[in-house]
Amino acid sequence: MLIVMKHGATADHVQRVVDTIEELGYQARPMPGKQRTAVGLVGNDGRVDASRLAALPGVKEIIHVTQPYKQVSREWKEESTVVRLCGGLTIGGDGVLVTAGPCSVESEEQILASAHAVRAAGAAMLRGGAFKPRTSPYSFQGLGIEGLKLLAKARDQTGLLVVTEALDSEGVDAVAQYADVIQIGARNMQNFSLLKSAGRAGKPVLLKRGIAATITELLLSAEYLLAEGNDQVILCERGIRGFDSTTRNVFDVTAIPVVHELSHLPIIADPSHGTGRRDKVIPMARAAVAAGADGVMVEVHPNPDRALSDGAQSLYPEQFTQLMREIRVIAEAIGRHVADPLPAMSA
Amino acid sequence: MLIVMKHGATADHVQRVVDTIEELGYQARPMPGKQRTAVGLVGNDGRVDASRLAALPGVKEIIHVTQPYKQVSREWKEESTVVRLCGGLTIGGDGVLVTAGPCSVESEEQILASAHAVRAAGAAMLRGGAFKPRTSPYSFQGLGIEGLKLLAKARDQTGLLVVTEALDSEGVDAVAQYADVIQIGARNMQNFSLLKSAGRAGKPVLLKRGIAATITELLLSAEYLLAEGNDQVILCERGIRGFDSTTRNVFDVTAIPVVHELSHLPIIADPSHGTGRRDKVIPMARAAVAAGADGVMVEVHPNPDRALSDGAQSLYPEQFTQLMREIRVIAEAIGRHVADPLPAMSA
Amino acid sequence: MLIVMKHGATADHVQRVVDTIEELGYQARPMPGKQRTAVGLVGNDGRVDASRLAALPGVKEIIHVTQPYKQVSREWKEESTVVRLCGGLTIGGDGVLVTAGPCSVESEEQILASAHAVRAAGAAMLRGGAFKPRTSPYSFQGLGIEGLKLLAKARDQTGLLVVTEALDSEGVDAVAQYADVIQIGARNMQNFSLLKSAGRAGKPVLLKRGIAATITELLLSAEYLLAEGNDQVILCERGIRGFDSTTRNVFDVTAIPVVHELSHLPIIADPSHGTGRRDKVIPMARAAVAAGADGVMVEVHPNPDRALSDGAQSLYPEQFTQLMREIRVIAEAIGRHVADPLPAMSA
Amino acid sequence: MLIVMKHGATADHVQRVVDTIEELGYQARPMPGKQRTAVGLVGNDGRVDASRLAALPGVKEIIHVTQPYKQVSREWKEESTVVRLCGGLTIGGDGVLVTAGPCSVESEEQILASAHAVRAAGAAMLRGGAFKPRTSPYSFQGLGIEGLKLLAKARDQTGLLVVTEALDSEGVDAVAQYADVIQIGARNMQNFSLLKSAGRAGKPVLLKRGIAATITELLLSAEYLLAEGNDQVILCERGIRGFDSTTRNVFDVTAIPVVHELSHLPIIADPSHGTGRRDKVIPMARAAVAAGADGVMVEVHPNPDRALSDGAQSLYPEQFTQLMREIRVIAEAIGRHVADPLPAMSA
Repeated sequence: MLIVMKHGATADHVQRVVDTIEELGYQARPMPGKQRTAVGLVGNDGRVDASRLAALPGVKEIIHVTQPYKQVSREWKEESTVVRLCGGLTIGGDGVLVTAGPCSVESEEQILASAHAVRAAGAAMLRGGAFKPRTSPYSFQGLGIEGLKLLAKARDQTGLLVVTEALDSEGVDAVAQYADVIQIGARNMQNFSLLKSAGRAGKPVLLKRGIAATITELLLSAEYLLAEGNDQVILCERGIRGFDSTTRNVFDVTAIPVVHELSHLPIIADPSHGTGRRDKVIPMARAAVAAGADGVMVEVHPNPDRALSDGAQSLYPEQFTQLMREIRVIAEAIGRHVADPLPAMSA
Repeated sequence: MLIVMKHGATADHVQRVVDTIEELGYQARPMPGKQRTAVGLVGNDGRVDASRLAALPGVKEIIHVTQPYKQVSREWKEESTVVRLCGGLTIGGDGVLVTAGPCSVESEEQILASAHAVRAAGAAMLRGGAFKPRTSPYSFQGLGIEGLKLLAKARDQTGLLVVTEALDSEGVDAVAQYADVIQIGARNMQNFSLLKSAGRAGKPVLLKRGIAATITELLLSAEYLLAEGNDQVILCERGIRGFDSTTRNVFDVTAIPVVHELSHLPIIADPSHGTGRRDKVIPMARAAVAAGADGVMVEVHPNPDRALSDGAQSLYPEQFTQLMREIRVIAEAIGRHVADPLPAMSA
Repeated sequence: MLIVMKHGATADHVQRVVDTIEELGYQARPMPGKQRTAVGLVGNDGRVDASRLAALPGVKEIIHVTQPYKQVSREWKEESTVVRLCGGLTIGGDGVLVTAGPCSVESEEQILASAHAVRAAGAAMLRGGAFKPRTSPYSFQGLGIEGLKLLAKARDQTGLLVVTEALDSEGVDAVAQYADVIQIGARNMQNFSLLKSAGRAGKPVLLKRGIAATITELLLSAEYLLAEGNDQVILCERGIRGFDSTTRNVFDVTAIPVVHELSHLPIIADPSHGTGRRDKVIPMARAAVAAGADGVMVEVHPNPDRALSDGAQSLYPEQFTQLMREIRVIAEAIGRHVADPLPAMSA
Repeated sequence: MLIVMKHGATADHVQRVVDTIEELGYQARPMPGKQRTAVGLVGNDGRVDASRLAALPGVKEIIHVTQPYKQVSREWKEESTVVRLCGGLTIGGDGVLVTAGPCSVESEEQILASAHAVRAAGAAMLRGGAFKPRTSPYSFQGLGIEGLKLLAKARDQTGLLVVTEALDSEGVDAVAQYADVIQIGARNMQNFSLLKSAGRAGKPVLLKRGIAATITELLLSAEYLLAEGNDQVILCERGIRGFDSTTRNVFDVTAIPVVHELSHLPIIADPSHGTGRRDKVIPMARAAVAAGADGVMVEVHPNPDRALSDGAQSLYPEQFTQLMREIRVIAEAIGRHVADPLPAMSA
């Protein structure tokens, strides 16, 4: 940590910073410069409270050299984490795992048709919301527990693993009972009560990046999960807020190699929410795989015209088949492969 | 709602849009143009599922004419809502209500000293976090219930009302028991489970704007509260995410008149989080009052150098006294006045 | 400047950084830490090429302690600059100077009517574009030299000073001949050829902040003007790009006290472009004055319904009269006053 | 165009809108709704001045159905434009053209070494700035005409085409004399005087997207070039401003398929500026090609440690060789190929 003094800071100001650093139990190393003095804090173990130093008179700003996160950091753990899912499937190794399905579970017919369609095209995990966080209180809010049961039924019939979102502590328990992966949605990335619940649920967690979250904030939210003892965490880039309404979000593909540099956790990409537009999903899924994503997650609906939510960004099943074909080639071009789904359990 | 067709959309495409609109129970009004056709949907009651239309072939985009929110809208209720707090204090009338206090409740000594100091300068409500949503799991997370009790004690001694944040359903119950206003923080603006709990708690709610929330999204989150039957809602602008690290956030002062135009709910401003820098709090509190804010909320700490959180943006008590002096004059310049605090209950 | 090494950087990597710093003529001060080493560069005179150090192996990032600008900095010159305009008017002292007028000069009748109207309400400077930078090549591009002559005529009749925009070097010469202040528009804030021309033109320059410019970039663009020997520079906040289409831009009022802290140059505010909506101009002009702006610049049109550009954000003359009334009171509330216009020259 | 009336607009307000539309020479089609009335404007030829309608009483907002650009639009010209460069090379067909070279031309030795290195790895065009737009007036500003001559010498020796930036009208003439493609940089995307000069220079133009430009604004700037009679225009995505300082910019890969949908012009990608970090250039170049880019442009320096500008984002020559290998495979995976360079002229 570096404490940068104002141009006009006095020797007393500098001394007070030095004293405060030592009072906190660290060493201070003043660095006088032509324009200003800076004071290095040596021995920072990541627990220094910067705001106390920032508040001292004569201090211009505090510069952090140490990252505020720990266990999620690649400096903490060099080798990449491979998240182990049911039946031997993994995320974070050589394979690229494809998750697909509708935005919401709407009916037994719809979710089973979706599951069979995406399984036939080669997806390994089924997505579908049972608890839906909707911007408006008047929008369809999901089938709840009934939706979870339908997802479980689809898993039995197809061998697809299931990922679905939880919105609160009770939801975490329910999702953990029926699904393979608990999803924390973008709007809840900094719902710390929910993160603590999910971290204790004993299942892998898919943590989506908030719409205006920095990579550091995403990693700190993941740190909440690891701090509860759960290191089976998959991150997900799904688009950040931008200034151009041409697309729903700005799909930040660069987040993929950035996360791979800073953290040992795997990261997948969701080009459906990332772009919000069906005809952009295929090229951007290709781009994500080319950038090194450990998986992609796409919305597919057997009949997007009649979807109860997000119809405009859901692929038709035949488009998904084309997407699978294209990303298989891209994955191989960079020395990876699309992971095969498990056989149906009821088969 | 206007359904804009692509340039090359066929007559069949247009007909399918018309049929779908009528199937949904509304009237369709096609408008052929030189470059493209658009189809107006007449009779929209705010419940049309746009994504179904957006997904039809030949459709370029959907344009919303009706706002997605209802009960919070000034078109729904013309006259401004006056939120009635304990002891006859209000937010949303002529008065400008000032809330002040430390970021977190840290100790009995600290919160009582803070309360007496801000009361002496003229604040009418005390702020102070008992449950703290912290970006890092290793930061101070608040004193919890103990903190709530200390806030209640400060209220008894000073007559200040109390606002404090709840992070989950259990927290809502606890806060409702001890405080006058339940705060929903920026990170939880779209935590819909929490909004539903808060909407049912029978106390006024202070809803802070999320760091990347549009005004429409803020109003839709408020709509969750009103949909639960609670119209005692105060909105709060507290800065949005920007690209310039000179300030912590971009304090969107214009949101104040924008909310006043679109909604009947009162809005206050938090220049402490809005700017993140102590020496910008005074000019920006003045600016917020000049723009028509129904209140301001500022962080004041008896000893910012030793604050456990957000020390760098907390005012010294004497700065807060100066701020009160300045905003009194500004408020009167625009025909309002700073609301007087209640007498101490134990007095 | 601080060179932060990667966690795994070797002693050789650190040595190479030290050697490079010394080769560049500065002193190196290594600071080993628990997680990583950082190397301080002592004696930075603002000319160190950081990218050379950033490119060395083992380097994680470069942290700048010294600001990249010089002459515009308040550390370079403590006292505030007072820009001296024709006839004894100033910007940057106690007075708040009001500039008003139409977006574009459209006709003799329109500009004279505008000038008389804003003069009657108390404006001291007239705005109006003769050369218009328009997003579309098919939009009205201004009357050119003819427009400049009409502005000069309006000045003669009313005593208002004139500010108008130049788009290229030839335009700078023409504007300098007819106007009192040369405006550099937001789109050209980093048109460095234009800045150099304007810096040499011998007239005060009004430099508008680019739509996505940081304060540092704004000050560096001003530095181009001072580097040409012209210190008569007025900065202008006019809104930055945001994610919410409710307003045209995000009017960054906080930029006003931030610029006042970092630089000795005066800063005015343009709430017309800042918000893009007529009914937000009055409250936001009040907010800018309350935040300490050295002036405001607003669009007023005698007949906004028929304006050739930006009609929706232009005030009606009677609204401008109201605005003048309100900001006079706010200015006095903070110990300033609205500057009086000069008498008409032809009077 | 749709004119949306306020909820409380009167019949007179609606009539005034209808009258104004007819006075402008178009047809009006009122659409009464439950919440508000909207008025369709039929026959819009793209020249309607919206601000005049927006300014009428009772009008809430104007919604544009027609795009403001014309000649650049794919609705105007269905087939993709293939830009024809010297020697038969093209951009916009099946080939993916790779441009590489240093940020700036620094010396004869440096530019020739760069040219030979990137030619050996398979690049077809050389980049290198002779006129440099630098944020600070004290940074290296380029070698000027001398730099152009060195680029021409490099072209003679290697067969590489040359693209380099012009900053003003005089620069356009000079660049047109020595280079194959005139680059308009991001900071000048809305320097309309410069666009007009470049449009008349008789050479293909590479137009980079401004750091906060919407796709619509990028296309409107390209429209300036086509309006001058030059349809040999290549667009370039190079990163937009974001809120996370982890990367220099947000590299908006989705802009590639979006531009391909809206316009017939080719678009290339610059992952060096897009990410600002050397180790992110290779994955993001792969991503851009996977998303359908018509070319990539990367910074390569024979000795990045000693580069005078942007050293930290320049590839080492051996990294560029690896990048070429990887994007060749990706290009073929999607049915394209990396374009071969021309033979050296002097060979």
